[in-house]
Amino acid sequence: MQEPKKVPIGVSARHIHLTQEHVEILFGPGAKLTEFKPLSQPKQYAANEMVAVYGPKGSFPKVRILGPARNLTQLEISRTDAFVLGIKAPVRESGNIADTPGVRIVGPAGEVTVNEGVIVAARHIHFHTSDAERWGIQDKQMLRVRIGGERGVVFEKVLARVSDNFALDMHIDTDEGNAAGVTTGEFGEILD
Amino acid sequence: MQEPKKVPIGVSARHIHLTQEHVEILFGPGAKLTEFKPLSQPKQYAANEMVAVYGPKGSFPKVRILGPARNLTQLEISRTDAFVLGIKAPVRESGNIADTPGVRIVGPAGEVTVNEGVIVAARHIHFHTSDAERWGIQDKQMLRVRIGGERGVVFEKVLARVSDNFALDMHIDTDEGNAAGVTTGEFGEILD
Repeated sequence: MQEPKKVPIGVSARHIHLTQEHVEILFGPGAKLTEFKPLSQPKQYAANEMVAVYGPKGSFPKVRILGPARNLTQLEISRTDAFVLGIKAPVRESGNIADTPGVRIVGPAGEVTVNEGVIVAARHIHFHTSDAERWGIQDKQMLRVRIGGERGVVFEKVLARVSDNFALDMHIDTDEGNAAGVTTGEFGEILD
Repeated sequence: MQEPKKVPIGVSARHIHLTQEHVEILFGPGAKLTEFKPLSQPKQYAANEMVAVYGPKGSFPKVRILGPARNLTQLEISRTDAFVLGIKAPVRESGNIADTPGVRIVGPAGEVTVNEGVIVAARHIHFHTSDAERWGIQDKQMLRVRIGGERGVVFEKVLARVSDNFALDMHIDTDEGNAAGVTTGEFGEILD
């Protein structure tokens, strides 16, 4: 019998990634993100800094920034959040923001309106290369993952992302976490 | 090959059912619910009337009442809504509200605080008796239902409810609908 392929689950609340240029527009010249707490992926952290985001229909006053600064500014929201903001955000892999909607971002020192970058992050699993090799999983493979419990679900089309820089973790958003009745630190099982 | 068991999906936003006594406290003596539009189930309707609900952490100013009045007052919310209100609502079948949390309900003519009745509705399918017989499905049976698309999922533990008074319809909440990328009127398939 094969070893069950158990993966820890991380439920991602809405958050934003910023370029260093946008960090300085929003928080002032020379400003840098500062670490509030580490995330599951090496060198990634939740920053102390937060911004407000405004859509045509609604807004969120305190959206956590994840650091460090990146080469793209990207707001990741749930589909529930998308309805609140009035922004038709597509389901996308992180970084793939061509032809996505924009948003107005407001910080304590200034504001910036981006023309693209609002996505609903596609569910995915980060694998360290050694985990992927042990289980015979390829980068970009689509997997099915079962989460048990009273709201048991099987998530299909879970994207595998494999790198030496990753730690094993499945990322779903709050809609998916709530639909499955699961919270960060619980486990799912890769079916195939 | 067997006929695929296709079921239309209805995504339920937060809503409330009220007793006639509570309708009159909230809307005034002798008040009756009035029909805004019919629902999928025979004789059920979304009412023109709305109420505000208040939890310890947050509130919703306009919650749709579903009519007609029932023998229990019951607020049905998503798990996302439960976090907003600050109410730990359990996943329950409609009507099974023993030991559930209460909520403060405010209408234009008065308010009422119930000691129980806040639930996250368990996903379920209404079958007319003839649909259930054709597909060999029993009342109270637990089913698995697949929803395809870019956010494909299989929902487990979908409760079958069979009655001559029901029309075929699968009810999921907004978290489940958003996690599956599905909206009312699309279809799922019963796997077993």
